[in-house]
Amino acid sequence: MTKQKLETCFSPALFEAEAHVDSIVVILDIFRASSAICTAIANGVASIIPVSGIEEAREYKSKGYLVAAERDGFVLDFADFGNSPFNFTKEKVVGKTIVYSTTNGTGLINLASASYLTVIGSFLNISALAAWLIKQDRNVLLFCAGWKNRFNIEDTLCAGAIADILMKSSLFDSVCDSTFASIDLWSAARNDLMGYIEKAAQRKRLRDKKLDDCVEFCLTPDFTDKIPVLKNGVLVDNLQ
Amino acid sequence: MTKQKLETCFSPALFEAEAHVDSIVVILDIFRASSAICTAIANGVASIIPVSGIEEAREYKSKGYLVAAERDGFVLDFADFGNSPFNFTKEKVVGKTIVYSTTNGTGLINLASASYLTVIGSFLNISALAAWLIKQDRNVLLFCAGWKNRFNIEDTLCAGAIADILMKSSLFDSVCDSTFASIDLWSAARNDLMGYIEKAAQRKRLRDKKLDDCVEFCLTPDFTDKIPVLKNGVLVDNLQ
Repeated sequence: MTKQKLETCFSPALFEAEAHVDSIVVILDIFRASSAICTAIANGVASIIPVSGIEEAREYKSKGYLVAAERDGFVLDFADFGNSPFNFTKEKVVGKTIVYSTTNGTGLINLASASYLTVIGSFLNISALAAWLIKQDRNVLLFCAGWKNRFNIEDTLCAGAIADILMKSSLFDSVCDSTFASIDLWSAARNDLMGYIEKAAQRKRLRDKKLDDCVEFCLTPDFTDKIPVLKNGVLVDNLQ
Repeated sequence: MTKQKLETCFSPALFEAEAHVDSIVVILDIFRASSAICTAIANGVASIIPVSGIEEAREYKSKGYLVAAERDGFVLDFADFGNSPFNFTKEKVVGKTIVYSTTNGTGLINLASASYLTVIGSFLNISALAAWLIKQDRNVLLFCAGWKNRFNIEDTLCAGAIADILMKSSLFDSVCDSTFASIDLWSAARNDLMGYIEKAAQRKRLRDKKLDDCVEFCLTPDFTDKIPVLKNGVLVDNLQ
């Protein structure tokens, strides 16, 4: 069996679309878009329409959709809620289609849309996601959202945690420095993730904006075994 | 005393020139440009003219300059030598002006040229460089060359080693995730740097091209206390 290639990308500014047309791209935006999307899918949302622009989100709202939209962590005035995973409760989302616009996550989904398949990863679905990736027999790119094109710690740690499982399966090969670095950062952090995450600038930003109630939840492994996948431009449960 | 800001950039594709007009930018291209430049300055080269293009290097050659020029690790046919630090012996370089064109390093020097000051860092001059940076009372950016715009391990480790010293001085502050990640990677690697570097793709590339005789040297701390600095577009000894 030929080993599949595992790569990690630390920032949208480093993404090479043409290198990944044949790969499964795993989008990681831990604080908070991918954690929120995993929560919504876990709680039975029918589908999530990712949109980039504020105006597009506003138009959907005027058509009666539920709209989750924020910029820099703050809910836009016309939106129903922002992107804290705690907004996406079963009561609010089950069976619904939600329009979702975030600072960063939506842009990544668009960037990755030319890949073989785009899925959403987080600590919340990490074991199910890793097991599923191992079964696919296909190249994988772990795509960290970062922050304003910069490297960030939280997405890298999640990439490292996933990469650690995939590499241990012996079904993947990597000659990607980012992958090895992310595994070693995960090793440094895994025994005290809540302590380690204090190093992350986004941890501080969320605290300063009093948006950090969900930090511990976003770092919780295996809240769900659902894997959000992009089908025809819309995020749905992989098994749907 | 106000603390100075320490930041780390993992790739030229992530460099934000306007954010660093007031900073000292330390260029790190461990395998092998910055190690070679530090060696040349240590061995008494009068100055190094960094050029980007092959044609520019060829023109200098026709005017009688000593030219170091390579692409992807291989010496160009018209050049006197490539960028192994072992080329820049005292016998060859003392008192001379050398024209230097590399795959990656020269481009970085141009990118950083709008900063307050550009210096060249490597393991070879690490203690002298860190001590000098601490004295400058100025923001510092550790600028990793990476490889074809990608993150790489060797430059990040050197950034981490420098950042570790600067942060321990208590004269610097950082809210930069890349800085903290590089320090932790350095911690993981420092006790067996030659073993750790096996993870680096560039280590493998140099071995495949039989250009890896200088790897151990490039990872040797404190071969010199000289600091190459960019003055009027030319690299010279900082004390010159």
